[in-house]
Amino acid sequence: MQHTIGILGGMGPAATADMLSKFVHFRHVGQDQQHIPIIACSIPDIPDRSACLLSGGPSPYDYLERYLHMLESAGAECIVIPCNTAHYWFDRLQHSAHVEMINILDATLAELPHHSQTIGLLATDATLATGLYQRRLVQQGKTLYVPEESHQREVMQAIYAYKAGDLLLSQTLLFPQIEALIERGVDTLIMGCTEIPLIINTEVARFNCAFIDSTAALVRAAIRWYEEKNGETASVERPELLGVE
Amino acid sequence: MQHTIGILGGMGPAATADMLSKFVHFRHVGQDQQHIPIIACSIPDIPDRSACLLSGGPSPYDYLERYLHMLESAGAECIVIPCNTAHYWFDRLQHSAHVEMINILDATLAELPHHSQTIGLLATDATLATGLYQRRLVQQGKTLYVPEESHQREVMQAIYAYKAGDLLLSQTLLFPQIEALIERGVDTLIMGCTEIPLIINTEVARFNCAFIDSTAALVRAAIRWYEEKNGETASVERPELLGVE
Repeated sequence: MQHTIGILGGMGPAATADMLSKFVHFRHVGQDQQHIPIIACSIPDIPDRSACLLSGGPSPYDYLERYLHMLESAGAECIVIPCNTAHYWFDRLQHSAHVEMINILDATLAELPHHSQTIGLLATDATLATGLYQRRLVQQGKTLYVPEESHQREVMQAIYAYKAGDLLLSQTLLFPQIEALIERGVDTLIMGCTEIPLIINTEVARFNCAFIDSTAALVRAAIRWYEEKNGETASVERPELLGVE
Repeated sequence: MQHTIGILGGMGPAATADMLSKFVHFRHVGQDQQHIPIIACSIPDIPDRSACLLSGGPSPYDYLERYLHMLESAGAECIVIPCNTAHYWFDRLQHSAHVEMINILDATLAELPHHSQTIGLLATDATLATGLYQRRLVQQGKTLYVPEESHQREVMQAIYAYKAGDLLLSQTLLFPQIEALIERGVDTLIMGCTEIPLIINTEVARFNCAFIDSTAALVRAAIRWYEEKNGETASVERPELLGVE
């Protein structure tokens, strides 16, 4: 049995490539054949998730369902979606799926250290509006900060600037918003949009807080799924926390 | 029409992720939806290509054909293979395929500048043994150097070290072999194995020669295929030559 993982991606394509790369780099094996079998669907015609949820744009759901079933037909036995905002439709997709799925919020929140008390959240307007992360963090008794309204506009512009290929602009827009959250007392920042780790990139050390990368968390959860299916010893139990703890 | 591109990868998985990333970075567009639709198959159980061609190991062909047809069934209209050695089976695969395929050797050699006269080739033992590149370079009237036998052993060890996750060892093994080729008069180096650009990585500027990246060349050729199918203006006509010219 292959136990192939399917990546339902394209939201955006850079985050999908980042996820595929993380599957390779997090899996410490000696040769090609020991890597995890993956089929990645990066068909980016899926309508904008934020535009749908916030301003009544066309729904991405039918596209997500179609590519989900395409991955199933191709042999995927477990589906992961490298897009936090798309998880608004996760339960409905899971209901339609014939194979397992792993939720990016479950994977990300499982990596939150117990000692982290004051959490910051970097995400799209739509992820914030749907309250996906907020509800669960408050249930866990954590204090949660999201960027103030004017700062969140810059976060959103940073995400779209990155999607448009302008890394420098996206960093210029995003970094002051991270500093502002740290000044408010945030000790741990959730990168709750899969473009955010690509924007912060190698600059993680310049900020005085710990980061949780939602793409990386989902990859680690998927590797654990694969190892369990294959009776392998778990290799990625401990999250690799980024930045200072 | 989507005009989806299928990546028949997994040889190795890091090269497949590199190709997907290059499809994003070479396509200068403003939003997710304008990126190229891609399905990437990175199922790495394909038997080792070099072991098959050089020491009678199991053939990768049946695996290649199976994943090719899987990509076709999933909707791919053009197939690319980010592995030079696997192109030994390219003609046979093309005969079996129902969709278009782009050859990595065609794409790579098309990027060779006219003024390049003395070419070096970094590739697997098997790619060298099959003479895929050598025949065509000599037909073009170019002088070709491959590493001397003892040096080629180090090149091959570098490729397997990278596949095993040891970037530093792979660079330590490979870099002196590049210097040796430059000392013999090479002005342009073909990275004729898709792990080689990952090993050289950001260190390209330390060598006094031009580089041609076979993965990048194949991605540019595939982007041109897509643009032509969609009636778009060609955006990647000129190769981006790496290093000094």
